[in-house]
Amino acid sequence: MSKYSGKNLATLSEVEIKQWIDSFDTVLTDCDGVIWVDNNPLPGAPEVVNKFIENGKKLFFVTNNSTKTRPEFVEKAVRLGFNVTIDNIISTAYLAAQYLKNVGFSKTVYTIGSTGITKELDAVGIRHIGVGPDTLRETLADTVADFVPDPDVGAVIVGFDEHFSFVKMMKAASYLNLPGVIFLATNTDERFPMPDRVIPGTGAIVNAVVTSAERKPIVMGKPNPHICEIIRKQYNVDPARTLMIGDRCNTDILLGKNCDFQTLLVETGIHKAADIEQYAASDDPETKKLVPDVYLAKLGDLLPFL
Amino acid sequence: MSKYSGKNLATLSEVEIKQWIDSFDTVLTDCDGVIWVDNNPLPGAPEVVNKFIENGKKLFFVTNNSTKTRPEFVEKAVRLGFNVTIDNIISTAYLAAQYLKNVGFSKTVYTIGSTGITKELDAVGIRHIGVGPDTLRETLADTVADFVPDPDVGAVIVGFDEHFSFVKMMKAASYLNLPGVIFLATNTDERFPMPDRVIPGTGAIVNAVVTSAERKPIVMGKPNPHICEIIRKQYNVDPARTLMIGDRCNTDILLGKNCDFQTLLVETGIHKAADIEQYAASDDPETKKLVPDVYLAKLGDLLPFL
Repeated sequence: MSKYSGKNLATLSEVEIKQWIDSFDTVLTDCDGVIWVDNNPLPGAPEVVNKFIENGKKLFFVTNNSTKTRPEFVEKAVRLGFNVTIDNIISTAYLAAQYLKNVGFSKTVYTIGSTGITKELDAVGIRHIGVGPDTLRETLADTVADFVPDPDVGAVIVGFDEHFSFVKMMKAASYLNLPGVIFLATNTDERFPMPDRVIPGTGAIVNAVVTSAERKPIVMGKPNPHICEIIRKQYNVDPARTLMIGDRCNTDILLGKNCDFQTLLVETGIHKAADIEQYAASDDPETKKLVPDVYLAKLGDLLPFL
Repeated sequence: MSKYSGKNLATLSEVEIKQWIDSFDTVLTDCDGVIWVDNNPLPGAPEVVNKFIENGKKLFFVTNNSTKTRPEFVEKAVRLGFNVTIDNIISTAYLAAQYLKNVGFSKTVYTIGSTGITKELDAVGIRHIGVGPDTLRETLADTVADFVPDPDVGAVIVGFDEHFSFVKMMKAASYLNLPGVIFLATNTDERFPMPDRVIPGTGAIVNAVVTSAERKPIVMGKPNPHICEIIRKQYNVDPARTLMIGDRCNTDILLGKNCDFQTLLVETGIHKAADIEQYAASDDPETKKLVPDVYLAKLGDLLPFL
């Protein structure tokens, strides 16, 4: 439990900031909007991350993005100046593959998603089908008749899939109707707004499958509790001495709260100080959970204190 | 308010049944599972429906199916022995087109759905785009860049669409992000279970669009309140003297309850007497609403009393 709530780090003294930095020895950080935006590192972010690692803190990038494998994340991070290896990356596609490995899964996965997921399955030796385009053949009746369910399918994973289609939804719902079939979702982000466009997120695809399957998935991504279990157990982390850094209160900060981590919001992405004020003023305890312990204009501002 | 609740009609006396029949002068009936199953009329159903009409009752087929136009429904009904015309059909595609006509809509509709919807829009002179296959061109980035929103789009209709795709979801969410764009859904049926297969329903497509658009639609179909308004106003119906007949308690019977109609469940489709008993035993008022006034093994059993 932090002694701060909704506090601007920049208003603390140097001694207080250094004490705060000494209060955690594990750092989990979101990527987009915190350490980089698209293909550009945020000012000072690589230096801060690299200093954390040099100073002996355990550091993990925690991302809901299911379209890249961990090696692909590392390649990008290194290119942008971060001194990290594959062991510093926790991605939802990796978590999904680890989940199945940990339960001793030995069947086939029907995947709605991209090679970001299937390569992580390949890495743990799990067979998969379904990736890539899959659209209607002639009529719906023909397509349904042509669909011979693979009797070896024992799990369905749903992640981000630009080829998502009615046919894929039909197949996923049909597999999920069978007894014992595991249902995993990488994450539930609703959408990515852009100027004049809205790109649907994995959450939209997940909700379509949930509606037709009449089942809820185990969700790997932030802010769902599954990720806490993995982080605590697999990485042997002390929650009280762990800091979660993010730019979104309803995923990153909420994950931190759900895991009893300390929390830092940086204002280089989605949410800002004004959002925090609004959450803090709410009477709803669920909304109050969105208030980070501390916030800062940008991660790079920590550099002078490291 | 009916004097019955969860009563088996077959246990009433002939006088009581005739009094019950005299208590309504409008009949709304679901189609599949009540008057026909696929392409076969249920025994006695055409005779009962035709007798209702001969005896001067107003009669309407009310269907959530958005894949057929009203003329297509009439063609099927007549072929199966029902003496009905287009004026006896209330379909969700028709209701969506009527909704836009009634609000003086004069722009273009982006449609996720089939020609069942677009022919009804044609019939009221409303332009539309979007029907048919629409999948990824090369990469997602290319597809997003190629998408030039039509500035004339002022409404999005979502119905059953076997060509539903990520690209369609992206376009719908993008249009729905613009101010003033109307959002209609034909219905929210979740799915159609078949042996070894699950066919997703319109509700699955609607929930995908709702998640990415972060907006709720006005729903035309049963059991949503919009249909009550249309039935009461457009058809000048007295709710207390109207009977809703159906085979599903959570759509047909609930629609009846939501509209203050009388209700009859027939056991030739989804729900049976055992379901009614279970609903009636519930302490939850929402579940209790699923109990029809009366039920009957099949609609044809009314014939001797007409």
